[in-house]
Amino acid sequence: MSAEALRAGARRHNTPATNGDRLWNDIVATARFGSTDKGGVTRLTLTEEDRGVRDWFVAECQALGCVVEIDGIGNIFATYPGEDMSLPAIAVGSHLDTQPQGGRFDGILGVLAGVEVLRTLSESSTRLRHKLTVVNWTNEEGSRFSPAMMGSGVFAGALSLEAAHALADREGTTVNAALDAIGYRGEAKFDPATFAAYIELHIEQGPLLEASATEIGVVTGVQGVRWFDITISGTEAHAGSTPMAQRDDALVAAAEIVLAVRDIARQNPPGVGTVGFVEVGPNSRNVVPGSVRLQIDMRHPSETGLDQMQAALEDAVRNAGVGTKLKHIWSKAPVVFDPAIVEAVRHSAEALGFSATDVVSGAGHDAAHIATITPTAMIFVPSKDGLSHNEAEYTSPEECARGAEVLFQAILELDRR
Amino acid sequence: MSAEALRAGARRHNTPATNGDRLWNDIVATARFGSTDKGGVTRLTLTEEDRGVRDWFVAECQALGCVVEIDGIGNIFATYPGEDMSLPAIAVGSHLDTQPQGGRFDGILGVLAGVEVLRTLSESSTRLRHKLTVVNWTNEEGSRFSPAMMGSGVFAGALSLEAAHALADREGTTVNAALDAIGYRGEAKFDPATFAAYIELHIEQGPLLEASATEIGVVTGVQGVRWFDITISGTEAHAGSTPMAQRDDALVAAAEIVLAVRDIARQNPPGVGTVGFVEVGPNSRNVVPGSVRLQIDMRHPSETGLDQMQAALEDAVRNAGVGTKLKHIWSKAPVVFDPAIVEAVRHSAEALGFSATDVVSGAGHDAAHIATITPTAMIFVPSKDGLSHNEAEYTSPEECARGAEVLFQAILELDRR
Repeated sequence: MSAEALRAGARRHNTPATNGDRLWNDIVATARFGSTDKGGVTRLTLTEEDRGVRDWFVAECQALGCVVEIDGIGNIFATYPGEDMSLPAIAVGSHLDTQPQGGRFDGILGVLAGVEVLRTLSESSTRLRHKLTVVNWTNEEGSRFSPAMMGSGVFAGALSLEAAHALADREGTTVNAALDAIGYRGEAKFDPATFAAYIELHIEQGPLLEASATEIGVVTGVQGVRWFDITISGTEAHAGSTPMAQRDDALVAAAEIVLAVRDIARQNPPGVGTVGFVEVGPNSRNVVPGSVRLQIDMRHPSETGLDQMQAALEDAVRNAGVGTKLKHIWSKAPVVFDPAIVEAVRHSAEALGFSATDVVSGAGHDAAHIATITPTAMIFVPSKDGLSHNEAEYTSPEECARGAEVLFQAILELDRR
Repeated sequence: MSAEALRAGARRHNTPATNGDRLWNDIVATARFGSTDKGGVTRLTLTEEDRGVRDWFVAECQALGCVVEIDGIGNIFATYPGEDMSLPAIAVGSHLDTQPQGGRFDGILGVLAGVEVLRTLSESSTRLRHKLTVVNWTNEEGSRFSPAMMGSGVFAGALSLEAAHALADREGTTVNAALDAIGYRGEAKFDPATFAAYIELHIEQGPLLEASATEIGVVTGVQGVRWFDITISGTEAHAGSTPMAQRDDALVAAAEIVLAVRDIARQNPPGVGTVGFVEVGPNSRNVVPGSVRLQIDMRHPSETGLDQMQAALEDAVRNAGVGTKLKHIWSKAPVVFDPAIVEAVRHSAEALGFSATDVVSGAGHDAAHIATITPTAMIFVPSKDGLSHNEAEYTSPEECARGAEVLFQAILELDRR
């Protein structure tokens, strides 16, 4: 849909509309903070590049009439006044940091769409009933400081501020020191009832929308995740003198488990299962492998689905023999977004005439933390070739514009409630 | 069979017999050159440890009346005189070097059994018609200088002396310099007709004899070997947001090839097939693998068998899809030992009342090179748990004694021809 059609749609609703060209200009303008030769962005959290884009964001929001507050973990809250200042704010946002050699859209699109909503309200001198807060969450990516989704995690109480401050990167720099170094350790404090609702626009980071030529993903939740480590102990042996019948080849057992993980995921749709890491010992061409380590990632939107996948994996490991051990090392429960906020997103996309489909996020997002304290939903727009965490990450100006307009219309609908 | 039974058998043949206790004493005595804390041996070729055992070997053979000659690559030839000095020598031997953290039997057993035959002839003042030469081949293991089987390769003309001299270890020391450092670069030259026959006694380095409770392996040849590299190019993708149906997972394709290699070997007995090396990219738990490299080792006693295995592997790679490439990087043709020498070994084992079975060597040996210029065969004795290149390598005193006596009786039979 063109920008003109968007404006026409907005006129039908008798409200202002976001401006896709202006949003694209902001995407281009912010991509210079940490830009790479190949057209991507390397803007790790709390670096000088991150400071640059944060300063830009703060200045733009202040110019648009926002009050900017920063909390102890460096989250930035830019709040545009509402008609009824006693109502809690509607919040939107995402994150400004990227992976190393990341792209121009992952994270920042959700923040810039919020800025575009602010520009739209400001230029038309429109006030909502509620305040509108555009948020940048610190360290969503987790590539410099682990864990990921740190700022939203601290905000939602999943991680204490003190614990987060003490975490260090590989050079030994703590989060606390890194916040001070770029001047983004603030004092603002919020209680869990701060927001009436939270909506995060994000690129899909997967291929589903593009493959089905769907314009908008209405995100109903975030898959749960379970991580497993498997160790397989076979018998290291001479590749020439050990007959096939006498072998206890750890890699053959591992290959069977790799295929079992694929089959388990296929049998539990829409679950996914991945063996991403393999380590073979001694890893020499002419030695029958004596040991293999595998790292497994399984995801499903429901706990029941995860339970079934785990049970099937345990069976596969049992079948692989006594020398195989499974360890469940980490898990994250599925998140189900608030039906009323999801409905506002769905209705907004339909009202704008965009094709839309319900999707469950495969990746984690700040919204997953915020959903534990605030009615929350997300909007996805397509990712070319499903790519993200990649310099070739791409979402077209039209696709970005659609996402921002869906966000804006959903805000307007929530504001009317 | 006890040493007494061996002597009783020898008396039946009206010849002297080897002495298993004396052979065991030599095994214990030589294990001190490079002995490890765990009862193994680290005696890399042309090191001080190798010099120690070489000096021991030369001194013992000279004391038994041998003439000792050393050639340009450091092979040692200890020749006991025969009644008819115009006849070519019957040769036996193997190698004194070991792998790092290797065992007390791999290689040296074949040399020490030759020494025990010399002791037996010497103590009984027996002369054979032929001269008898006991050989130590330089650098069979190839763990310090590549390629393996270097000394026998130079002797057989598979590798030039000049090329071998120029090869360097990881520290940059050349073979030439290493030979000089331990004083084992000799001047002796031999022509291909030097030997009437060559027999090498060696531990099996595999589990077949032990598993079938067979005392002697009559080695009819050495498997051919083909090495392949496979590269699989899939699509690196997010483990959470990429549905199973949209994946092009390089590791799943690799797992299918690992199982195909196993199946191909099973379908082409007595062939063996091994995927010993795997490298996954990017090898991160939550990233669908985009690339995998595999290294494959396939062996079979016949070229036809190797051809069939390779054709089946090419099919499997084709089935794995366009992103999979197979490269045939190295091969070694099968070796078929001389039927008359093999028959002498078989007859010797039968005459001594030992259980014996024909086997094909899975591992390479100096005998494979010598077979190209001299009528050759090998004798195997059991390896406990099939282990070699391992400090836990073990062959019992009785098993060693049987091998030495089979060697001696085969020499006597060849000498009568």
